[in-house]
Amino acid sequence: MCELMGMSANVPTDICFSFKGLRERGGRTGPHKDGWGVAFYNNKGVNTFKDPNPSHNSQIADLVSDYPMKSCAVLAHIRQANRGRIALENTHPFTRELWGRYWTYAHNGQLSTFKDLPCSGYTPVGTTDSERAFCYLLSELAKRYPNRPSNRKAAFRFLSKKTKQLHQRGVFNMLITDGDYLLAFCSTKLHWITRRAPFSVARLSDIDVDIDFSEHTTINDVVTVIATEPLTNNEHWQKMQPGECVLFKLGEVVLQIDP
Amino acid sequence: MCELMGMSANVPTDICFSFKGLRERGGRTGPHKDGWGVAFYNNKGVNTFKDPNPSHNSQIADLVSDYPMKSCAVLAHIRQANRGRIALENTHPFTRELWGRYWTYAHNGQLSTFKDLPCSGYTPVGTTDSERAFCYLLSELAKRYPNRPSNRKAAFRFLSKKTKQLHQRGVFNMLITDGDYLLAFCSTKLHWITRRAPFSVARLSDIDVDIDFSEHTTINDVVTVIATEPLTNNEHWQKMQPGECVLFKLGEVVLQIDP
Repeated sequence: MCELMGMSANVPTDICFSFKGLRERGGRTGPHKDGWGVAFYNNKGVNTFKDPNPSHNSQIADLVSDYPMKSCAVLAHIRQANRGRIALENTHPFTRELWGRYWTYAHNGQLSTFKDLPCSGYTPVGTTDSERAFCYLLSELAKRYPNRPSNRKAAFRFLSKKTKQLHQRGVFNMLITDGDYLLAFCSTKLHWITRRAPFSVARLSDIDVDIDFSEHTTINDVVTVIATEPLTNNEHWQKMQPGECVLFKLGEVVLQIDP
Repeated sequence: MCELMGMSANVPTDICFSFKGLRERGGRTGPHKDGWGVAFYNNKGVNTFKDPNPSHNSQIADLVSDYPMKSCAVLAHIRQANRGRIALENTHPFTRELWGRYWTYAHNGQLSTFKDLPCSGYTPVGTTDSERAFCYLLSELAKRYPNRPSNRKAAFRFLSKKTKQLHQRGVFNMLITDGDYLLAFCSTKLHWITRRAPFSVARLSDIDVDIDFSEHTTINDVVTVIATEPLTNNEHWQKMQPGECVLFKLGEVVLQIDP
């Protein structure tokens, strides 16, 4: 399958530590060697780095690991291809614009049927079930809200219902963000952790790296990291239930929808 | 203003040499220090690197300079902000999807009026006249051709007419590509050069770097580079006329529309 990672924070935060762990699973400690990508929001802009090569030895991933790009919303994916060949156009995350905002999305799993999903205004470029489902979700959102709704939380609630329907068609673990809100949907496997003061030391599971977050944070920082499997081995990660949906904003849970 | 650069080639080619020259103009040999970006197509996928910081000393630009990403269609921009603050969302090139293809675009110049340009289905994320004009162009294309036309050259001819209308509103040097075709429109300043066998040595104008292309090519390679100002000082670049439009595919000129 694939692995997902996301971050939501109340202060621009770099993802170097978590990404160092995740990238190892792309061909070294995990089989997800069929490409990877990560998107960083900076206000309304988004900077995406993608590579159809394995993340563990990618030169572009070296840059991302070592260059502290600070962001309040990050979304990443490492791929083990099932539907759609190994190619840049099939590499997650995918981005499209809706209501004058960039939406970014990544999926882990496989849908049994997807070619019948209606997409209006958004056409997949690649051949994955994932991108088709993304185009479907945005197309449904645009149909329901032709203009940007003042109550964006309601729009994400609507999105979570559509996501639940996709979950009926197969495995559909998913992260989606508009740069402010980040919605996590668990179909089979997804974990998250919120770090806040007092910060302490975290140790990665996949590579011998640890960090003392108290040296890099202020007491007001709130940073949530979401990942398919916990990235650290000395902290408690929340395990999501199949069918559960959590919406994050500025690092905090703002909506939780039980299965 | 800004500077544009594009490449169209019949074989995947890296842009390292030309980019090394261009990036110097982003804060060292030129005043275009308000961000930069470059998009590389790989089949139907596109990989974009952007940075609101000056290109001449950007760490992301170091990667792009030294890592030979091979592509048949490349589009780059270095920015000197006029409309729209210095921010990632105002950094070119811009990308949107139409007909299941990613379209990438960059603009050099300034339009006297732009807020009245109708955009349907595409909404600007940032505040530049450039992105508004891009959304307008794609919106007009989608209106004229709701489905992908079998004759894409005709679609680019239509686009060139719309571009010419924008040129009436101010300075509108522009590059736009769907990954196969690359359209260059000259409003005030744009040059291009096609390199083919017998290849020889080229020397950059902005930094003491030269390259012997005969060591990196086969006799069948055709590579066109487009730039606001010639990037080399020992070759003859074609100077475009104001109002002139050239369409490239696989390195060759496939359509030339006089002013």
